[in-house]
Amino acid sequence: MPTPAILLYADSHNADVLYFGRVHVPDAFIAIAHGKKKIAVINALEFGRVKKSSAFTDVLPLEKYLAAAREKAPGQKVGAAEVIALVAREFGIKTFVIPEDFPAGLANRLTGLDVTLELADGPIFPAREIKTSDEAAAIREGNRCSALGIAAAEAVLRASKIVSGKLHYRGASLTSERLKFAIETACLEAGALSIDTIAAGGDQACDPHDRGSGPLRAHELIIVDVFPRVQATGYHGDMTRTFLKGRASDAQRSLVAAVREAQKAALKKIRAGINGRTVHQQCLDVFAKRGYETKRTDHGSVGFFHGTGHGLGLAIHETPRVSTVDYKLKAGSVVTVEPGLYYPGLGGCRIEDVVQVTSTGAKLLSSAPYDWELK
Amino acid sequence: MPTPAILLYADSHNADVLYFGRVHVPDAFIAIAHGKKKIAVINALEFGRVKKSSAFTDVLPLEKYLAAAREKAPGQKVGAAEVIALVAREFGIKTFVIPEDFPAGLANRLTGLDVTLELADGPIFPAREIKTSDEAAAIREGNRCSALGIAAAEAVLRASKIVSGKLHYRGASLTSERLKFAIETACLEAGALSIDTIAAGGDQACDPHDRGSGPLRAHELIIVDVFPRVQATGYHGDMTRTFLKGRASDAQRSLVAAVREAQKAALKKIRAGINGRTVHQQCLDVFAKRGYETKRTDHGSVGFFHGTGHGLGLAIHETPRVSTVDYKLKAGSVVTVEPGLYYPGLGGCRIEDVVQVTSTGAKLLSSAPYDWELK
Repeated sequence: MPTPAILLYADSHNADVLYFGRVHVPDAFIAIAHGKKKIAVINALEFGRVKKSSAFTDVLPLEKYLAAAREKAPGQKVGAAEVIALVAREFGIKTFVIPEDFPAGLANRLTGLDVTLELADGPIFPAREIKTSDEAAAIREGNRCSALGIAAAEAVLRASKIVSGKLHYRGASLTSERLKFAIETACLEAGALSIDTIAAGGDQACDPHDRGSGPLRAHELIIVDVFPRVQATGYHGDMTRTFLKGRASDAQRSLVAAVREAQKAALKKIRAGINGRTVHQQCLDVFAKRGYETKRTDHGSVGFFHGTGHGLGLAIHETPRVSTVDYKLKAGSVVTVEPGLYYPGLGGCRIEDVVQVTSTGAKLLSSAPYDWELK
Repeated sequence: MPTPAILLYADSHNADVLYFGRVHVPDAFIAIAHGKKKIAVINALEFGRVKKSSAFTDVLPLEKYLAAAREKAPGQKVGAAEVIALVAREFGIKTFVIPEDFPAGLANRLTGLDVTLELADGPIFPAREIKTSDEAAAIREGNRCSALGIAAAEAVLRASKIVSGKLHYRGASLTSERLKFAIETACLEAGALSIDTIAAGGDQACDPHDRGSGPLRAHELIIVDVFPRVQATGYHGDMTRTFLKGRASDAQRSLVAAVREAQKAALKKIRAGINGRTVHQQCLDVFAKRGYETKRTDHGSVGFFHGTGHGLGLAIHETPRVSTVDYKLKAGSVVTVEPGLYYPGLGGCRIEDVVQVTSTGAKLLSSAPYDWELK
């Protein structure tokens, strides 16, 4: 049986679309995998560029197909659905497999147009999970940018002064915003866009997705999480370090040591064939042994209440997950390893690196120092 | 009849989700509009932050609902669909209206769970098209950032030297990449993220979505298009200027003059009630009168082959369009006005500003000089 045709409709910020077409298209367009053909229907604005530099084998002009659709149904509104129906007929395609995130509106219109749609059972491009050596190199480049961002943050923190318990840098209050600016500029200069960068101190950092705002304080844990997208390839880095400027308390030191121990224990467990859940459990065990409790409170959760890691590639979160979910890790997949502990009052700590899973272990794709207490 | 409930499932990079919830959530989550209630089902990682600072009136813990769903269907895989069904029952919701871009996979699973879905006929939040004064201010702020980016580009071009026909800046070749770095850094410093910035010269600029790469040349038109997203609000600016470093030819001067004349003519036409098509036609008329032909070639199109403008807000492209499509502009909507001409060999020119439509005209929400020939 031949592989059924695949239909995508999204812009290239959608990782499947970028993976398939390897070209930047800012607005949603029609992309079809049909045997060895990679078909794109592209408007005049993007046509030349997509024809010149993409993985598509057949680039069709959208306007021509819209005109043909209009001719077929005079006076009626035509759009992507009618164009897809025309292309399907031209290429002899009866059935399309669509991804989970295919737009429901378009799917609905297509079913009225003699096109059969089947939802993919799982990822539409399962091969995306297994990274080629080029992809691993692209992710390593992403992490080189992450590391530059984190080094920029460290340099600013080292150069900061403590003025009545708050951090000052170059004569003004050091805020999360200023620290993020240093990080994001370093990433930009290296060719990567760091979006949603986190530089959060104290209790803010106990909300793991709080990006941080306002003045940073001395003697508080500051989580710096940098996940830039390399502009040339679309692949991401993802790295977290936790810093403290000033003098750490014993409780802060124990917290950081526990997180690093959990990370090392998780890294040691990773190899092809292991259940992601077992890796996650490893972190939970380290925390339990050291007496760090995880629980939900009325104001949110404390302890370790996120997954140990996630797949990384063209999307910042992709298959697989390393969490409470059963999932066997495969050789070639790339995952983050990022345990964390969060206790308002004491602070938050997360340490994150990225590895490629191999048959015998985990190969680091990120590299940055772990020094954290900055005098 | 009460307003039917609305169901969304996306992360907050989706403009409808951000418009509705006014909070940053990086992974897809369940959001429901039900009468005056705004319901979100949120995982532990985001729970505290969403509860503390969002427009949601009811923030439900995802894990609790997943556990309840598991209890109801032991041994079966449960996910967002089962959680939505439980929430629907709890709130007495039988039918949800879903947006065009609702994920087809989830829609499919929901129909098996006694939940009726209806596709929205048009935008799910029609009010998004009409900008409040706060939203107009947020877009104006976006354009302040755009203007800073464009000013940074102009400063670099002015400070550049011409060395054997190429631009040099601070002792090294001035590339599109370096110019974009200057722009993006200026935006970052102002609190906005400029993604997909365009700084393209010569023939590259004739592909309107080519972002530009490699050395920039003297005496060539350079299109600079900056559409940053203000990090605090999520609203965009969008502004384009075309520069030339060196000495322009008569043909280049005519081209730039034609584009600016078309822009002014379009701006003059805009007011509530006018058809976007009429505004677009205004640009086409100016170009025709001046002898600038638009046509499709084997290598792409030349002339003016994109729309005159698009709605701008939380999304970079949103309702309405100012193009060949019939669409009456409404008071309060915000649109770009950006005619352009592109002829390989001669170069490309686009000039873009942003206006809010009023009952009597168009109110500029962007401001930057139009000087373009930089000696």
